[in-house]
Amino acid sequence: MTLDDALVLDAADPLAPFRERFALPEGVLYLDGNSLGPLPRATPDALADATARQWGERLIRSWNEGWIEAPQRIGAKIAPLIGAATDEVIVGDSTSTHLFKALVAALRVDPARRTVVSETGNFPTDLHVAEGAVGCVPGATLVAVPRDRLAEAIGDDTAVVLLTQVHYKTAERFDLAAWTARAHAAGALVLWDLSHSVGAIPVDLNAADADLAVGCTYKYLNGGPGAPAFLYVAKRWQQRLVSPLSGWMGHAAPFDFEDGYRPAEGMKRWLVGTPSVLAIAALEAALDLWGAVDMTALAAKGAALYDIMAAAGDALGLECITPRDPARRGSHISFRHAHAWEISQALIARGLIGDFRAPDVLRLGLTPLYLSHADVWRAGAMLAEVVRSEEWRDPRFAVRAAVT
Amino acid sequence: MTLDDALVLDAADPLAPFRERFALPEGVLYLDGNSLGPLPRATPDALADATARQWGERLIRSWNEGWIEAPQRIGAKIAPLIGAATDEVIVGDSTSTHLFKALVAALRVDPARRTVVSETGNFPTDLHVAEGAVGCVPGATLVAVPRDRLAEAIGDDTAVVLLTQVHYKTAERFDLAAWTARAHAAGALVLWDLSHSVGAIPVDLNAADADLAVGCTYKYLNGGPGAPAFLYVAKRWQQRLVSPLSGWMGHAAPFDFEDGYRPAEGMKRWLVGTPSVLAIAALEAALDLWGAVDMTALAAKGAALYDIMAAAGDALGLECITPRDPARRGSHISFRHAHAWEISQALIARGLIGDFRAPDVLRLGLTPLYLSHADVWRAGAMLAEVVRSEEWRDPRFAVRAAVT
Repeated sequence: MTLDDALVLDAADPLAPFRERFALPEGVLYLDGNSLGPLPRATPDALADATARQWGERLIRSWNEGWIEAPQRIGAKIAPLIGAATDEVIVGDSTSTHLFKALVAALRVDPARRTVVSETGNFPTDLHVAEGAVGCVPGATLVAVPRDRLAEAIGDDTAVVLLTQVHYKTAERFDLAAWTARAHAAGALVLWDLSHSVGAIPVDLNAADADLAVGCTYKYLNGGPGAPAFLYVAKRWQQRLVSPLSGWMGHAAPFDFEDGYRPAEGMKRWLVGTPSVLAIAALEAALDLWGAVDMTALAAKGAALYDIMAAAGDALGLECITPRDPARRGSHISFRHAHAWEISQALIARGLIGDFRAPDVLRLGLTPLYLSHADVWRAGAMLAEVVRSEEWRDPRFAVRAAVT
Repeated sequence: MTLDDALVLDAADPLAPFRERFALPEGVLYLDGNSLGPLPRATPDALADATARQWGERLIRSWNEGWIEAPQRIGAKIAPLIGAATDEVIVGDSTSTHLFKALVAALRVDPARRTVVSETGNFPTDLHVAEGAVGCVPGATLVAVPRDRLAEAIGDDTAVVLLTQVHYKTAERFDLAAWTARAHAAGALVLWDLSHSVGAIPVDLNAADADLAVGCTYKYLNGGPGAPAFLYVAKRWQQRLVSPLSGWMGHAAPFDFEDGYRPAEGMKRWLVGTPSVLAIAALEAALDLWGAVDMTALAAKGAALYDIMAAAGDALGLECITPRDPARRGSHISFRHAHAWEISQALIARGLIGDFRAPDVLRLGLTPLYLSHADVWRAGAMLAEVVRSEEWRDPRFAVRAAVT
């Protein structure tokens, strides 16, 4: 693969026009959209409208002019990206808070089933929140095992299987339908964390008969730093599950100001407090891009970008820990290296932003909406220069930041 | 009191210059800042910077350029408004979510104490969340009684007394120090909801020896619709209490990506997921106003505004349900009327925005930072016209909105 080959692919890329929809800074190769998606060009105006007009001019009247339904309206825009019905998704709160609500609710379905089964090395908040959730249900425990022992860990005592579809470090992907079927065969529910899947690969929760899912919107969906996360509850569970975080916005009639809690119908019962209208406005602007995106084309381009970067890593003899088979991975690529931190810093100094995941992983996001084949080719060339020159040995690249 | 009298008071008002710091729409008298504070003029630029520069240009680098410490930095700006030390307050999540975390943690202090004591008619989310919280602690129950039976309800079994200092409907105020002492005398903790106090009246949690507090920032603090709420935990409790919502941002070392949860030191352990950076930026811009506000002058002006509106209500023979004694109320005034809804709508049609609280309360916010004495005098005159003319009987004012 030469730069010219990459440019030929770009010329035929049906997703190429999306690049102009993002405000990426000059001189930066941004391979970290899997951590924080870049700014869509439409977002500043949408936020300015939410601020100056909706808040500033309309004040409380805006609650009846679009704000109150926003969590459901925006959930409905995420639904097609994850194979859900429009009334099965809601936004608000963080992924962690959604995980807590869904886990406690799932643990209350059948008192005979007391375990949450997950994998060691899952994204930390999934395991941390599961620890907190089992502490809120008498007799419940968290069983976390390595991936190769997961199947045997799911059994008669399993209330819910908690899995992250695409691993945050390796990009390894669970077969969503197969593992959902495995959980169901044992009589358990399944809760999918789609944080590294949504907007990266096609996802079909309904086709898989999945029960519950959560996901982040500030990665591939470009909703902004700390954007509100989403929660999916399959229609058949919506009347049976109740949130332990019984806040007033999830009440059947919040403005009747009753003392007792009565959960709302449908997804509204998963709301807790008043969600941030400004954060939601930024997310909505970002989601409005996705109506025009062909997910099959997206996945195909993601696979092509992987091939370019994997070839660059192979040429350097780097250990790639991301599966080669596109059906078995998400849309980022990771290399293990004893000096991954220093290399990530040397790359940033050259204008290539990727990231580091402790203790030894260099992670590069391959986001097909705004990265061209030539971008990834150039990133591969830059990685080669940094590794071959050993410029990462400069002591300034050894200094660890608070956030890595 | 005549309009000229009000104008004389305005001419001597030390807070008058703050009016120009807010972008209030032309032709609107805004007496609902206790529900949603108006837009500070500084906010749009702060949000534009957070969006275009911090997110758009700096991308993930911003996490190490101010984002990661924002919940503590902004908590420290709220601290002086509530009599807390700067390292006793954090922002993020909603008031409801903070209530849940604090209640469950408080219920775990002493297994012999199993009740949350609160009052009937408290703001609904306080009672609703308490219902959810007791459901997460074996044997715990919520005891909600009318205010005149609260003292006797606090006893040997009380883990935590949950009170809203200023009542959302009547503005009636609890004596924070006296009720904290009463809870402590019974061996219980106290959790104050300061949603209708902060920015309205002087509050001194440390002087009262209060244990826990939460509060809303989109009312008197003008942080924006659904702005992140704050949580206060007294220093002496910070090592003993642990959040049941054990998300990764509250971990001692979130970027070490450990499987097991270890709570961070200090207030950081109360973080859950990634907070919305945009929502926090808007809140920070609003808080930067408060450094120059004299809280004694604020309370005095609030009392003067009350006198003007109370006189207008008296002249109309309206039933005022807000205490006359300024030490026993917050900074709004409420009238009970069988047609409060219709009156509120007729006032809005004339450009006076107050609000309605079911089933029969007309509520008017008296926010001293941006309302002048003349504003409140004109609002009283408008109320008189609407009540005397009975123009609220127009059928269009009977239509109920989704959000009231």
